[in-house]
Amino acid sequence: MPESQQQIQLARRPQGVPKHEDFRFETISVPKPKQGEVLVKTLYVSVDPYMRGRMQNTKSYVEPFALDEALSGGVIAEVVSDGDGQFKKGDIVIGNLNWQEYSAASESALRKIDTSIAPASAYLGILGMTGLTAYFGLMDIGRPKQGETVVISGAAGAVGSTVGQIAKIKGARVVGIAGSDEKIAYLKDELQFDEAINYKTEDDIQKALADACPDGVDVYFDNVGGPISDSVMNLLNEFARIPVCGAISSYNAESEKDDMGPRVQSKLIKTKALMQGFIVSDYSERFPEGAKQLAEWLKDGKLHYEETITEGFDKIPDAFLGLFQGKNKGKQLIKVSEPSVKK
Amino acid sequence: MPESQQQIQLARRPQGVPKHEDFRFETISVPKPKQGEVLVKTLYVSVDPYMRGRMQNTKSYVEPFALDEALSGGVIAEVVSDGDGQFKKGDIVIGNLNWQEYSAASESALRKIDTSIAPASAYLGILGMTGLTAYFGLMDIGRPKQGETVVISGAAGAVGSTVGQIAKIKGARVVGIAGSDEKIAYLKDELQFDEAINYKTEDDIQKALADACPDGVDVYFDNVGGPISDSVMNLLNEFARIPVCGAISSYNAESEKDDMGPRVQSKLIKTKALMQGFIVSDYSERFPEGAKQLAEWLKDGKLHYEETITEGFDKIPDAFLGLFQGKNKGKQLIKVSEPSVKK
Repeated sequence: MPESQQQIQLARRPQGVPKHEDFRFETISVPKPKQGEVLVKTLYVSVDPYMRGRMQNTKSYVEPFALDEALSGGVIAEVVSDGDGQFKKGDIVIGNLNWQEYSAASESALRKIDTSIAPASAYLGILGMTGLTAYFGLMDIGRPKQGETVVISGAAGAVGSTVGQIAKIKGARVVGIAGSDEKIAYLKDELQFDEAINYKTEDDIQKALADACPDGVDVYFDNVGGPISDSVMNLLNEFARIPVCGAISSYNAESEKDDMGPRVQSKLIKTKALMQGFIVSDYSERFPEGAKQLAEWLKDGKLHYEETITEGFDKIPDAFLGLFQGKNKGKQLIKVSEPSVKK
Repeated sequence: MPESQQQIQLARRPQGVPKHEDFRFETISVPKPKQGEVLVKTLYVSVDPYMRGRMQNTKSYVEPFALDEALSGGVIAEVVSDGDGQFKKGDIVIGNLNWQEYSAASESALRKIDTSIAPASAYLGILGMTGLTAYFGLMDIGRPKQGETVVISGAAGAVGSTVGQIAKIKGARVVGIAGSDEKIAYLKDELQFDEAINYKTEDDIQKALADACPDGVDVYFDNVGGPISDSVMNLLNEFARIPVCGAISSYNAESEKDDMGPRVQSKLIKTKALMQGFIVSDYSERFPEGAKQLAEWLKDGKLHYEETITEGFDKIPDAFLGLFQGKNKGKQLIKVSEPSVKK
């Protein structure tokens, strides 16, 4: 076991688009686990767009990250100390942990995962918060019916691609919006979306959407906000439902002035539509239901998922910054190390 | 009975704020009722902001008004012919009728009203669509709880003033926004709103709202859209509910460019808030429930209402145009004639 390790801290609160200078690599000692803790080694780190919000010091659904302290998030780790509790050396666990190579973690904050169902990394994606976000946002707020049209922005992302597949399982017509020809091909050819629109190469996104949705839009699963959402809002059907999951195009706005668009009120009235913001933890009591259904669909081959796995602890900031340039296809993870205990 | 009468038609589709030139007074003959119809004389005409939307030729929840044909809406009328059906001369009825002095109306499209409960005009307001709009929007979408803060824009209007009183009955803290000192006094002194803000004289509406809502906003009943709503959206509490009832500030926008504001998506996500457009007819199956409750509250002295009654058929366009200048306090009606049969 090394004596020192790297930790990534928030060096300053980003202004607009986050930059490398907002992060600091600090050398710290490898902690000694106390009573009730185990030492774990980081295998995979998840980077997610919502973390941009936590870098701001504003009221939100989660506490902001503290300046000059470690960043943290979903992590898959290997237990490397022999605890006297529930975990033993070699167990693969999931938890919310600091961005560092080794952590002393309270056993109660870790959950063992079953890598016989799916690879460990899937528990940060399709079988974790990502899959559950897609499942509850679509099923509880979107409520797609057979034959309805479901539009998804950020469709090739980890959440979006899962939403589209669940909507297909439910018999809806699915239209995805994404930002590269490779992503469009993935949505249409691999995930069998009915239509997919490359917003970066379409001259007239409003017309492309209207063409792709001749019967209007019944559900709009919104991962991005911004001008794309402005366009979808013009195609809503009566009683449309809009789960508002992410607004990645707004996260880097420095003030309201950077995120102006056509107001939605008259559009909501005309269509009697519903828009609802949500965060997966609102559904924590129903996680077992969602996880069971996702695992079933995965086992039956009805759900596919992609991962973009970047290698190396030092690449975590790069991978995070890449989210805002749409570099990832599916879930963006960083592989930090291999398990020590081979199975 | 006269042989000819006046009818008001849509002469052209308004551009921006409606003008007198958009209306045409046409002399037409007084119709003869056919089988199943009765002749009725118009007593009161209701003018409502939503009618602005029907003057546009765009997809909405109701058919647009046709050019060069009669405008129409809620009307209280007196039966002046002896039908062979359910109505007799002197009955006071309500229906959706053309803006003209006499109509031959199908009996099935009329409903007799009981003027012993409230004056006839109340059936176009507190006991009619206005009251039901307030009731269902607040109770079904807003769902105010004891001690929560309910903010209402257009608070001195017919719907807004009813919403505030129902919210008080439900134990909420009520903050109204309106556009004159007279309206503010009415809200605070007569309707017992906890706070009321004059948006026309406040230098900083955002600060005034924050001061009036120290615990944030749990329900925002939105009658106006526009910059006022932009400000309220910055004060939402977790799981806030926003019934979107009207957007009077947007109805005269000539294009999306005239109705731009800060996007709502990131605000909805941060607070997990819900925005929902609605129209009272969505609740038509539950009208008896709402009407019964409103009549009970009215009888118990728990609901007060104001009417702005303009006299004279020729003043209908004036009264309609006045809605967009906030000239009315409470329900805007036009008294066209007195009943012929005195009771």
